[in-house]
Amino acid sequence: MTSTRIQPATTAPGRALGPDRGPGLDPGPHSALDPAAIRAAVDQRLQDFLDTKRRTAGDPLLASLTDHVRAFVMTGGKRVRPLLCVVGWHAAQGYGDMGPVITTAASLELFHAFALIHDDLMDGSDLRRGRPTVHRALAATHPGHDEPTPAERFGVNGAVLVGDLVMVWSDEMLHTSGLHHRQLAAVRPLLDAMRTEVMIGQYRDLLTTGRPTENLESALTVIRYKTAKYTVERPLHIGAAVAGADRHLLDTCTAYAIPIGEAFQLRDDLLGVFGDPRRTGKSTLDDLREGKATVLMAHALRRSTPRQAQTLRTLVGDPGLDEGGAAVVRELLRVTGAADRVEAMIRARVDLARQTLDEAAFPDEVKSLLDTFATTAALRTS
Amino acid sequence: MTSTRIQPATTAPGRALGPDRGPGLDPGPHSALDPAAIRAAVDQRLQDFLDTKRRTAGDPLLASLTDHVRAFVMTGGKRVRPLLCVVGWHAAQGYGDMGPVITTAASLELFHAFALIHDDLMDGSDLRRGRPTVHRALAATHPGHDEPTPAERFGVNGAVLVGDLVMVWSDEMLHTSGLHHRQLAAVRPLLDAMRTEVMIGQYRDLLTTGRPTENLESALTVIRYKTAKYTVERPLHIGAAVAGADRHLLDTCTAYAIPIGEAFQLRDDLLGVFGDPRRTGKSTLDDLREGKATVLMAHALRRSTPRQAQTLRTLVGDPGLDEGGAAVVRELLRVTGAADRVEAMIRARVDLARQTLDEAAFPDEVKSLLDTFATTAALRTS
Repeated sequence: MTSTRIQPATTAPGRALGPDRGPGLDPGPHSALDPAAIRAAVDQRLQDFLDTKRRTAGDPLLASLTDHVRAFVMTGGKRVRPLLCVVGWHAAQGYGDMGPVITTAASLELFHAFALIHDDLMDGSDLRRGRPTVHRALAATHPGHDEPTPAERFGVNGAVLVGDLVMVWSDEMLHTSGLHHRQLAAVRPLLDAMRTEVMIGQYRDLLTTGRPTENLESALTVIRYKTAKYTVERPLHIGAAVAGADRHLLDTCTAYAIPIGEAFQLRDDLLGVFGDPRRTGKSTLDDLREGKATVLMAHALRRSTPRQAQTLRTLVGDPGLDEGGAAVVRELLRVTGAADRVEAMIRARVDLARQTLDEAAFPDEVKSLLDTFATTAALRTS
Repeated sequence: MTSTRIQPATTAPGRALGPDRGPGLDPGPHSALDPAAIRAAVDQRLQDFLDTKRRTAGDPLLASLTDHVRAFVMTGGKRVRPLLCVVGWHAAQGYGDMGPVITTAASLELFHAFALIHDDLMDGSDLRRGRPTVHRALAATHPGHDEPTPAERFGVNGAVLVGDLVMVWSDEMLHTSGLHHRQLAAVRPLLDAMRTEVMIGQYRDLLTTGRPTENLESALTVIRYKTAKYTVERPLHIGAAVAGADRHLLDTCTAYAIPIGEAFQLRDDLLGVFGDPRRTGKSTLDDLREGKATVLMAHALRRSTPRQAQTLRTLVGDPGLDEGGAAVVRELLRVTGAADRVEAMIRARVDLARQTLDEAAFPDEVKSLLDTFATTAALRTS
């Protein structure tokens, strides 16, 4: 295992908290906690791991599966979870060789690839990151479109397997990361929790999609499991655990992560309906056609007249919804005050997370970076 | 963790090698290496683990998912992999508290449950162990058969998730098994190998099913990965690794396991076409309708006249194949000598495995049990 040395966080001068600090997680080029460097180091680990898998595949089928995995993992993705994992390590004052925590962080990205591959096939999505999803890519490579195994079914089944394989590999990557066995023992329960939580979130999503209801509690539970815990809390926890964090520090991470994770998803839901497709890279019809049971929709249904509610129920979840129908839905989301309610929820959550940061015993540089992340997550337009 | 004490293998008097030693793995009630006791201990661990998951579920959805898992895992299954794992431990002269190796063995059964759940949904199977498969069971419980999320799709997607969850749990079970970190470090690479191998086997199966060919090599590769390595070699390896086995002992396990695992699957393929459904509990039409690219079929195609080959290709893989068509296929498998060839392959493999056992430095009791297993695997009628 080659060792990656990245300067650990030092107590750099605190930065003013505020929304105008440029894009993404990056606190600036002069910082020791440099997101771009972390991202590059994570990508390098992923590349190395998958290159080794490809080189040692032996079986030509495994080689071709590895190519699919590599194409998927290495083209796109913001590496949010790996970044937060490394930030968690800094938050808990991690020091020394960063190699193991970088690899641990990379293994979370591999786990995420698994989750996306299975998610895409469950949703029947055609595109991910502007490229064909894995089940579509596999279907296209199937030699016998007119043979007894139809290409489409082969694609779906192959994607189940590719997903399974990637999950197994994420695990392999973690326990060959060079973590000390005591670090590994601290990480495993958090990882187990994360993996079970994201699946509960997915399952609840599965149960409710296509049938938006007034049930705010249920919609909030989905985003808590699918986004807040999975994307923000657990990555921070896992990085912090590698650095030997105690319960108190993990709780502080939670107090920051849950509101920010929720805000992130609430913004996502708003962008999914009101966003600019040229900026989000995502159609504003997909969520509505799919009938995602979002908090936004729950608010709208709670504040609708019976007639408005009926209109919403007819249009949302209709796979054939067109721009005209979507405009009607958007108008209802506005006049019922649902969109404003969600904006208010986002603001309240960002305030809460900032308060936590103010009081946290994190290095200033970590606070600054997490503050930027909070702003970006909540106020982004893409 | 409660500790399970089962008498470790002692050097009991060797038993004559021969085919008439009764059913299954059981070398008799007086043996210290008692398969029934091992099986019971493994079941107890699985039950405890899943009961704890159920009790601590918190989220009602997780509770209901756990019920599906429990129903699947606890009703049926021969526990072949856990048994062989514990036998591997005995082969390497394991001693002391058997608790951790029993839990390790149980975690393999949980992994197998994952593999079966995903396998069944890929095959679109309705039944497993005489009960509805997980995707069918989930579809049946879906509240809204006429809602926008169709029950069938929900079943498939739910089964993807349940399978994912069970895989994650198998992993959790392993690393909370009480293994020392050095034992865990010895086991992990073998487990990683096993998990990747079974997926390669599945993928190759996916690529070839529905299109039986003359390619004997390809058919043999599938059974090597899907059965020989996954069902026999790796469980033995993992148990032996827990006991601190060296490379040489692992190689001896391999030399026994690969031929016996192949023989096991070759017998399975014969029973799938020629077996007595009342004994196998399995229709003799399924494999033929599915078009499984078996070694049996490859032999038949290699030894067919062009006309016979054409008949085979027409009938095998036809989802509407009836008993009349199946009778034609069976006759062709006989007249081409394919069935005899497969019987000869089985015999040669059993001979080879026995030779390995004779020379192995395993305790006599282990040899005796593995000899019984060889016989049962190769000559069973159910």
